[in-house]
Amino acid sequence: MSDKLKLVVWSREDYELRLSNIRRRLEQESIDALLLADNSNIYYLTGRVFAGYIYIPRQGLPIYFVRRPVEMEGDGVVYIRKPEEIPAAIGMMPPQRLGLELDVLPYSTASRLAAIFPEAETVNASPMMKQVRAVKPPSALQMLRESGARQTHVYNQIPGLFHEGMSDFELQVEIEHISRMEGCLGQFRISGDSMELYMGNILAGANADAPSPYDFAMGGAGMDPSLPVGANGTLITPGTTVMVDINGNYTGYMTDMTRVYALGTIEPLALKAHQCSIDIHRELTGMMRPGTPAKSLWERAEEIVTRAGLKAYYMGHRQHAGFIGHGVGIEINELPVIAPRSRDIIEENNVIALEPKFVIPTVGAVGIENTYIVHSDSAERITDAPEEIIYFDR
Amino acid sequence: MSDKLKLVVWSREDYELRLSNIRRRLEQESIDALLLADNSNIYYLTGRVFAGYIYIPRQGLPIYFVRRPVEMEGDGVVYIRKPEEIPAAIGMMPPQRLGLELDVLPYSTASRLAAIFPEAETVNASPMMKQVRAVKPPSALQMLRESGARQTHVYNQIPGLFHEGMSDFELQVEIEHISRMEGCLGQFRISGDSMELYMGNILAGANADAPSPYDFAMGGAGMDPSLPVGANGTLITPGTTVMVDINGNYTGYMTDMTRVYALGTIEPLALKAHQCSIDIHRELTGMMRPGTPAKSLWERAEEIVTRAGLKAYYMGHRQHAGFIGHGVGIEINELPVIAPRSRDIIEENNVIALEPKFVIPTVGAVGIENTYIVHSDSAERITDAPEEIIYFDR
Repeated sequence: MSDKLKLVVWSREDYELRLSNIRRRLEQESIDALLLADNSNIYYLTGRVFAGYIYIPRQGLPIYFVRRPVEMEGDGVVYIRKPEEIPAAIGMMPPQRLGLELDVLPYSTASRLAAIFPEAETVNASPMMKQVRAVKPPSALQMLRESGARQTHVYNQIPGLFHEGMSDFELQVEIEHISRMEGCLGQFRISGDSMELYMGNILAGANADAPSPYDFAMGGAGMDPSLPVGANGTLITPGTTVMVDINGNYTGYMTDMTRVYALGTIEPLALKAHQCSIDIHRELTGMMRPGTPAKSLWERAEEIVTRAGLKAYYMGHRQHAGFIGHGVGIEINELPVIAPRSRDIIEENNVIALEPKFVIPTVGAVGIENTYIVHSDSAERITDAPEEIIYFDR
Repeated sequence: MSDKLKLVVWSREDYELRLSNIRRRLEQESIDALLLADNSNIYYLTGRVFAGYIYIPRQGLPIYFVRRPVEMEGDGVVYIRKPEEIPAAIGMMPPQRLGLELDVLPYSTASRLAAIFPEAETVNASPMMKQVRAVKPPSALQMLRESGARQTHVYNQIPGLFHEGMSDFELQVEIEHISRMEGCLGQFRISGDSMELYMGNILAGANADAPSPYDFAMGGAGMDPSLPVGANGTLITPGTTVMVDINGNYTGYMTDMTRVYALGTIEPLALKAHQCSIDIHRELTGMMRPGTPAKSLWERAEEIVTRAGLKAYYMGHRQHAGFIGHGVGIEINELPVIAPRSRDIIEENNVIALEPKFVIPTVGAVGIENTYIVHSDSAERITDAPEEIIYFDR
């Protein structure tokens, strides 16, 4: 038995599908070769993260340039110490148009990689790889269903964690604990240079209205100005809600789910807004079909909210978020984006987290988030915890 | 009472010191102005994270260009929607040499920022900011001492968490839980595009020898190939060690500490290696003085290890790490780096995590890590848990 790591984790069939998805885009964009370095893209193709680069020519076989870990084996594995060793291994046919992940790679890294192919025109392959990853292969859909089931199992245990006098932060720590025991990997992959979140977002009462610097749907002041988002130590008191939006990464492909818990009697405006969120889910999942423009979902939700007279509280109150849904998978912010100026068109096997939410001043945040798989004639919900507000004291 | 957030969290005096540290470097490198966008650098100057940019001219006052959160107040705060609005607010004196964080900013972002100052020569300000942050202001030293004290308090509770039949992963989840209850912020800031770690690294038995893709001192196979580092579900059994290297971020400035626990009887080679690590700490802290080249610490440790005949196990066995220490603060990998080709010179108020470690096949990892503050005539240890191997069953 070999102690070596197999480079490609996916089945042969799955790997070939993923590779052909990339190649089709290379064809469409007339890119001769792609040099991938981003962990999320390396994971997409191989099912593992390694330090190094994948060189994918439009024709021919990929070459895996590995720095670490040692002792990996697989077709096309070449060990290197630095990227300048890449051209010699590629041989006689340097690319004329080379794709690099320019939205992700640091400027210095991208410049260094571009410089080792001085004859090549460098093009930004980040949008292309986002497109590729937006449509999930069957294996990814299974992993997403598995993440959703385990996340649901965790959410169903949340009411049992509450005790009187608990703060939002204390509740968060207990939810993290059962998530990790359930096998949550913890790591929260985000595309973008300045998005940070530890393990999820818990918002209790008035803290839901505290603006945060990050482009998440909801804010919160956080426990420290070095990470100003989410729980801030607010006591969970009667008449307020607790919104739970915690990490669903159990398999490398993550789901996204939000539920609301409460104590005592919640004022009718908040109850109405919560029901409005559920109504939006019902309406939008009916529209979530291949060929639908993503922005039309945003527009339909906007109509429903406006008609309900809830616009002032929609997607925040003091500060508003600019989207109500997003693709999810290896990273939490994949395509399509459900936003007013989105140009994305919904495709079969997109996986979309929909999160129409409201902030009701002094009460807290309400509304739900579910993750859905887009099929040709339906949207499959894979985050199945009960959608109504769950009362800790009933 | 205003509900608005104050932009600068630090005291006036502290803020002025931090600003003057940056300005001194601008002077030295003849940079006319700096445009900072990286969360870690924004936090360094202001004590908070916001979405936006800080424009720091060599002369004159900084301007804070904020996208989010809303409602911040402070001298020089200007709200913008996009960076193209920056030049108009700066006025008549565009910079000729503009510093950007080119080692951190994505290529697309850096190119966009450079393009809004078309007349300016763009220079890489990442190395400069790393130099600035390597020398900690008094406020940071206090925060580091606080992080160290709280991390020590957590480590002292670890023996009580163990029960027979526990896996490395189960122990990790319990350590995470008490860390969070102690106020650990969880977020593990790392500079570099492809480093990932959730909350820390626990290595039990033979898994310590599993190579990982990341440039950490130690590896481990991890629970899933999407995050291949650390605990992999290994049962903690007699005759093996458990190395604990878990997040010390309690204040925005983090400490780094590693300790070793064990069950049953550990073979003499491992005990010898653990003592060798402690000996290296004693020796190197005696050399850790302003003016000492960082690489001379690496060389001295190398001599000690070679004389002890432990070279084959030093900093890994199947895969070796290329450094034995690193600066620590807002990020886990700051300057100086204690490595063979490091050009760093140790300065007063550097904060250095030293981690000479060994992997003994089948037994596991041994050795300790401490965080030290460099003073003119001493090195102050701020991670104070007992250094010897702690036996769970004694």
